[in-house]
Amino acid sequence: MINNFTYNTPTKLIFGSGVIKDLPNVLKEYGKNVLLAYGGGSIKKIGLYDEIYKLLKDFNIIELSGIEPNPKYDPSVLDGVKLCRENKIDVILAVGGGSVLDCAKAISICALYDGEGWDLISGKAFPKDNIPLVDILTLAATGSEYDASAVISYTKINDKRGFGTPYIFPKVSFLDPRYTFSVSKWQTACGSSDAINHVLEQFFNSDSSIINDNMMTSVIKSLMVNVKIALEEPDNYSARSELMYASSLACNGILANGTGRSGWPMHSIEHALSAFFDITHGAGLAIITPQWMREILSDNTLNRFKILGKNLFDIEVNNIKDAEVVIDSFYKFFNSLGISMHLADLGVKEESIDAMADHILKYDSTVGSHMYVNLDKDALVRILKASM
Amino acid sequence: MINNFTYNTPTKLIFGSGVIKDLPNVLKEYGKNVLLAYGGGSIKKIGLYDEIYKLLKDFNIIELSGIEPNPKYDPSVLDGVKLCRENKIDVILAVGGGSVLDCAKAISICALYDGEGWDLISGKAFPKDNIPLVDILTLAATGSEYDASAVISYTKINDKRGFGTPYIFPKVSFLDPRYTFSVSKWQTACGSSDAINHVLEQFFNSDSSIINDNMMTSVIKSLMVNVKIALEEPDNYSARSELMYASSLACNGILANGTGRSGWPMHSIEHALSAFFDITHGAGLAIITPQWMREILSDNTLNRFKILGKNLFDIEVNNIKDAEVVIDSFYKFFNSLGISMHLADLGVKEESIDAMADHILKYDSTVGSHMYVNLDKDALVRILKASM
Repeated sequence: MINNFTYNTPTKLIFGSGVIKDLPNVLKEYGKNVLLAYGGGSIKKIGLYDEIYKLLKDFNIIELSGIEPNPKYDPSVLDGVKLCRENKIDVILAVGGGSVLDCAKAISICALYDGEGWDLISGKAFPKDNIPLVDILTLAATGSEYDASAVISYTKINDKRGFGTPYIFPKVSFLDPRYTFSVSKWQTACGSSDAINHVLEQFFNSDSSIINDNMMTSVIKSLMVNVKIALEEPDNYSARSELMYASSLACNGILANGTGRSGWPMHSIEHALSAFFDITHGAGLAIITPQWMREILSDNTLNRFKILGKNLFDIEVNNIKDAEVVIDSFYKFFNSLGISMHLADLGVKEESIDAMADHILKYDSTVGSHMYVNLDKDALVRILKASM
Repeated sequence: MINNFTYNTPTKLIFGSGVIKDLPNVLKEYGKNVLLAYGGGSIKKIGLYDEIYKLLKDFNIIELSGIEPNPKYDPSVLDGVKLCRENKIDVILAVGGGSVLDCAKAISICALYDGEGWDLISGKAFPKDNIPLVDILTLAATGSEYDASAVISYTKINDKRGFGTPYIFPKVSFLDPRYTFSVSKWQTACGSSDAINHVLEQFFNSDSSIINDNMMTSVIKSLMVNVKIALEEPDNYSARSELMYASSLACNGILANGTGRSGWPMHSIEHALSAFFDITHGAGLAIITPQWMREILSDNTLNRFKILGKNLFDIEVNNIKDAEVVIDSFYKFFNSLGISMHLADLGVKEESIDAMADHILKYDSTVGSHMYVNLDKDALVRILKASM
């Protein structure tokens, strides 16, 4: 059953080896003044920075560099806004992974907003315009290159917000898998875990359809097979290309068109972990996933495990015991990527579990009431304890 | 392996029961003068025509009715162009199936073109502008509501052309599955066969990837299961909703992002059949499909049948014999929809086979050189003979 939905993704994907040659043609539609937003030095190491300057010799490039993981409203977004205004920026070119893209998305709407930009991020006000955003992706993970959402932190007020608006869809995303060859094993594993979890969050929903269920497992399967290849052979173009494409589709929404109530419970839990211990998002998700599955497993949810078992692991699920084998298979899979599967190994302290459970319920009011399976504090504590 | 690709679908899908209530809001963005394009009386029978007039009481509606199956440049497209110019049409509202949509697409570009409209359709000239197009779909089949192509016939010069340009993407497609409840068994079967074949044409390609292969079989599986339900229970909303969504995705291109060389050989063959004997497109495709598969089956193509076997029929394919069982399963499936599987039963004459094979090679120059498996005249004759 396909429930009512509205779907529209205006972003153009330009995918493949060497596609960056079209960058000047794409940017010139918007103007000459380009804000080049990026993070650390990785785009210099892989030669992409020089390539961009060579291609954009007829443009005026203003740089915003040093955008941090878990991008900050202050200083990164505010600095970007200032640069846009001072330099009459026509188009923002974000080069990097999800953090750089999310920061650029925030800048693109805040720069044209007269009030306090944080109001747009926290949902107090709504954008009415944006500076066009183009990106070059260097990490297959969050799917920010193909969606209309972003996550920004505001350290001063100890707040971290996810927000969404059609104004932050990138106009064009350049996806060249070669730019991910040098991504470390750890980041490759965590990026794929993140993308797999994006699909799983959507897969566990109150209605199901043959088309959505199977399209979702198609994307998960591609990620599972290809991340193993990419970890063995970082320069394997085929594997890197599937990882890049699959993670773009994973969070775009097209896989969840018409699905029922789901919620994003594992992300809610992981956001608390990251807030308390600053762990890597994808690793936290990988550890939580099997424990969350164990918590919600029941006769009511068995059908979900049946499909995951058949399509991903060739396991026929007829009862709870079979489903536990599927959950064990997820555990072993994430572990095989080099993720320890114990939060303690990432520095998480058992004594914070109670506080984290409270934090989850405080910051995501839907956890207890609008999830595929609702979670109360006891359930959250059980999941976190089992993940230690 | 994902090959280089560019992908962009700007169309907004508004899907589900009752969504038509948003029609005035959508149309008013473009203006007051609406060309209402439709076919026969079916939209009156299901009450949709009256519903539209009730919703659009503040708009000026000009009608173009009687658009024929296999829509004609003369009179339908030319009449529509004239109406658009005389009435300063701001937006075209196409209500119907693929034929009505294709006709409206042609009108939308020809109306703003100073020269002979047929030049835009035949590829002699290229559109630079269009009248915005919005549609309400009443038949799940061609996928025209979610793509940038159309097929138009010009009887006077005995020509039939498929053409594509981003200018003919609909702005918004309203997809309410209830409008397909009254579609006849025959049209339901043929519409689903058409959509299944759209995916199969893309599935047989020179490169494969886990994500594309499995997403494609997801769509085919949804169509195969749900068409059987819809034939038994025409008012089954769940089945009709999956058929509608699946056929929109089937021809959109998203399933073929980064795939290798495929071609659309079965469509080429079917277009000749339709040209000579005016048979129903989806029925022709259903009959040709297994015979084309038999023709191209070899050790080189075995892998394709392996995936179809596993994902659609739970058949493990290890050799040619196993693949033949998969092909037989397709044959039986289409036959179970009420399609006779013999072209002779649709009025096709054996003595025209030679002329049709020549016609195919003349009108689709890629059949012999740019297909997944190229077909020469002997091969085409074999396929057609086996389909009799």
